[in-house]
Parts: sequence; C-alpha cells; structure tokens
Amino acid sequence: MNISHIEHIGIAVDNLEEAITYYENVLGMKCYAIEEVVDQKVKTAFFLVGTTKIELLESTTPDGPIGKFIAKKGQGIHHIAFAVNDTDEALKMAEESGVTLIDKQARKGAEGLNIGFLHPKSTLGVLTELCSKN
Amino acid sequence: MNISHIEHIGIAVDNLEEAITYYENVLGMKCYAIEEVVDQKVKTAFFLVGTTKIELLESTTPDGPIGKFIAKKGQGIHHIAFAVNDTDEALKMAEESGVTLIDKQARKGAEGLNIGFLHPKSTLGVLTELCSKN
Repeated sequence: MNISHIEHIGIAVDNLEEAITYYENVLGMKCYAIEEVVDQKVKTAFFLVGTTKIELLESTTPDGPIGKFIAKKGQGIHHIAFAVNDTDEALKMAEESGVTLIDKQARKGAEGLNIGFLHPKSTLGVLTELCSKN
Repeated sequence: MNISHIEHIGIAVDNLEEAITYYENVLGMKCYAIEEVVDQKVKTAFFLVGTTKIELLESTTPDGPIGKFIAKKGQGIHHIAFAVNDTDEALKMAEESGVTLIDKQARKGAEGLNIGFLHPKSTLGVLTELCSKN
C-alpha cells in the first residue's frame, strides 16, 4: 500500500461549536469548512495543520457511529485517515493481507473523497480510514 | 499558539514487534528507529508518513502510563503531538487560556525533543502533546 501522508485525524466531540472555539482560541487553528455528512450522521468541522486535517465530528443522532463512540468512550480521537492513490485498490490490498474491512468498496465521504474503513480488530485497535481523491 | 504541523501520533500497542510487522507489511511504512524512553516506561518505534511520524508505544511495565492505558481502553491511538516553536512558551499560553497542564515545564522526550502534555480533561478528551526541537 502506498500511503503518502496522514490525510486527517477524526476527533469525536460532544458539541461542534464549543470544540471549534477551543481549536481556534487555544490551539490557534482556523476552521475552514463545516459540512454535514448525512450518510455518517455527523456534522464535521475542518482545520488544516501542515499537510494534515483535523476533522471534528459531532453526531447528529445518538444512534450514529460517533454518538455510540462517545456514549462508550467519551470524547476523543476516533480514527486516523491515510491518503492513498486509489481507495478501492488499497482496500483490496489490505484484505489480501488479512485485514477485515468495514467497507468492501470505497464510498463518498466528507470533502468528496473516496473513503473506506478497516476494522480496528485487525489494525491493532486503530480505526483506520483510507481515502483518495479518485 | 503557533502550531506548524502534527509532529506525531502516539499509538499504544501490546507488542512492538508484531505492531511493526503490521505497519510495515500491511500499510507499507518503514520503521526508521526504535528507542526506549526510560522516563516514560516505554519502548517506541517510529515511522515517517509525509511530514508526520507514527510513534508506536509498548509499555515496559504494567504500571507505566501506556500499560495503564491499555489495561483500561485496549490498544489504540493514545495521543496527538503538535509541533510548536517553543514548548515552554506554548505550555504557558495554554495555561493562560485555561488549559490544565500535565507538565508545567518541558521535559525531554523521544528523539531528544522538548515535550509537554496538556490534560485531556481540558482538551475535549484528546491527550495532547506539544513538542519542539529547542
């Protein structure tokens, strides 16, 4: 698998507005986009830090994946996303290496990227996303 | 606070050797250094992904911070480290913004960096490290 960089770090938060205030006022970052991803039941806010984004995630419903994560573990880092050339190809390579996939095929995520998740049970506890522009 | 990029992502693992095999063989990264940080009771392995490092952390003793983390939460992402110009100055700014500090002053971490941690209770659940070369 050819990973060029960490595309983003996904962080689950209770309240997007309060979290944006912390990232802007304390850490000095600038939120450049807010987007709702209906499919994943989240509202997201994006910050660019070097070449990697911070993606804050607030659940729009308690039964969404972020809502369940926060109910179980509290706020915190939710996943890491690696940039690859071709998500479908990278998912296939991961599966051939014995990794359990959450997504068998790429689907559309925030910012129009093609995304796919690997299951944390086969990635040493790290919910891992692969994403590409194509 | 002037953060230039994400210096590294710290990931707690049960077994460094097995984890290195996963990161190298499945994700295609290359471990460039293994280092024991006696002060933090960990053995670490480093990978460079773009401009950010992945720092795998295996506890050398069950009563160390990583040992306790894994006992409570299992393997997974442990912390995020932001690169700043001057860790002491950034810690002071964070404290003035109302953040609770774990380290009042910078101390030496892996790779000889000056590091200091912010408490996750005041960083929305994210164990946050600040680090600088100076």
